[in-house]
Amino acid sequence: MEKISWKPGTMIYPLPAVMVSCGTQADGYNIVTVAWTGIINTNPPMCYISLRKSRHSHGVIKQNGDFVINLTTRKLAFATDWCGVKSGRDFDKFKEMKLHPAKADKVKAPLIVESPVNIECIVTEIKELGSHDMFLAEIVAVHGDSKYLDMETGAFDLSKARPIAYAHGKYYALGDFIGKFGFSVQKKKKAGTKKYNKKKKG
Amino acid sequence: MEKISWKPGTMIYPLPAVMVSCGTQADGYNIVTVAWTGIINTNPPMCYISLRKSRHSHGVIKQNGDFVINLTTRKLAFATDWCGVKSGRDFDKFKEMKLHPAKADKVKAPLIVESPVNIECIVTEIKELGSHDMFLAEIVAVHGDSKYLDMETGAFDLSKARPIAYAHGKYYALGDFIGKFGFSVQKKKKAGTKKYNKKKKG
Repeated sequence: MEKISWKPGTMIYPLPAVMVSCGTQADGYNIVTVAWTGIINTNPPMCYISLRKSRHSHGVIKQNGDFVINLTTRKLAFATDWCGVKSGRDFDKFKEMKLHPAKADKVKAPLIVESPVNIECIVTEIKELGSHDMFLAEIVAVHGDSKYLDMETGAFDLSKARPIAYAHGKYYALGDFIGKFGFSVQKKKKAGTKKYNKKKKG
Repeated sequence: MEKISWKPGTMIYPLPAVMVSCGTQADGYNIVTVAWTGIINTNPPMCYISLRKSRHSHGVIKQNGDFVINLTTRKLAFATDWCGVKSGRDFDKFKEMKLHPAKADKVKAPLIVESPVNIECIVTEIKELGSHDMFLAEIVAVHGDSKYLDMETGAFDLSKARPIAYAHGKYYALGDFIGKFGFSVQKKKKAGTKKYNKKKKG
């Protein structure tokens, strides 16, 4: 095994590619796509997005103090990419991408209806780091599309929404299920399960 | 489309599941797996990890001021999960998982040889957020396994390493390629390409 070395760079992958919606009223709503996002704290739930000062959404979010993170899917892949390339100064991105805004519960920024999961965020701090400003935020409400609920268990199955990931300049579908958190220490089920016993009875 | 609402939670996915290595000498090396990680700035390249104070690695990284982020793969999925469940207080995780440490260039923490990408990080700030402390860090060196270099182009192809992602309590493989960043605005190639012309000549 031979290691090659590069100059320092942003090589943590795969990352989410989320559509961040912002603005306070319909004619000022905007969407920007970011991969520089993630969870920074579990309790209280907190996340961040990092944005260049030059992005139109930077000013909008700085002024209003809130945004919504909308998870993306294969069906939304084109809009996800397009909203990351184009500027809200030039386009009404909701209109161009045929996306629909909906009123959020706790923030002024709109939800994107077509997204499977919407995360309402209130900015707690803006850190200037160089090329990007980091918006630290508290997650104040979360919404999911009911069609991804498992009817038997009531659990939300995100994989059914066919989420996408971003890795080294490319978008990928989420692939095969490998295991649940903790699978490496889970005891294997013994032979002669309840199901088997039931079968014998019948 | 009907939206259901949950209490605020950590629902940004898919995320990377990285193995973070730390410590200054072989008998104190440790590995902790985190999904609360990502890029916060492009230039200078910066990232973060968030850790509970109770994690063994929290104290190690706080004391030494550096760590290495090691990307994970299908082959490393078991070790990735195990290192997130078990504690370095109880196990030598390198030994238990048959992983090999290697000397880093710029930090005291070791690289994990079996990882396809190793990212050396120096802590610049620790932010106490509640359940977790966020370690902001500058990326000072990056290494990749040469076997994932494309021999023709010289480009590093991370997808060949079969990276894994973490989403809502489950690990997944990275799936089908969807498009490159910018695909939504790329002009389509016209008919009559060079390749076609060549074929006609032959």
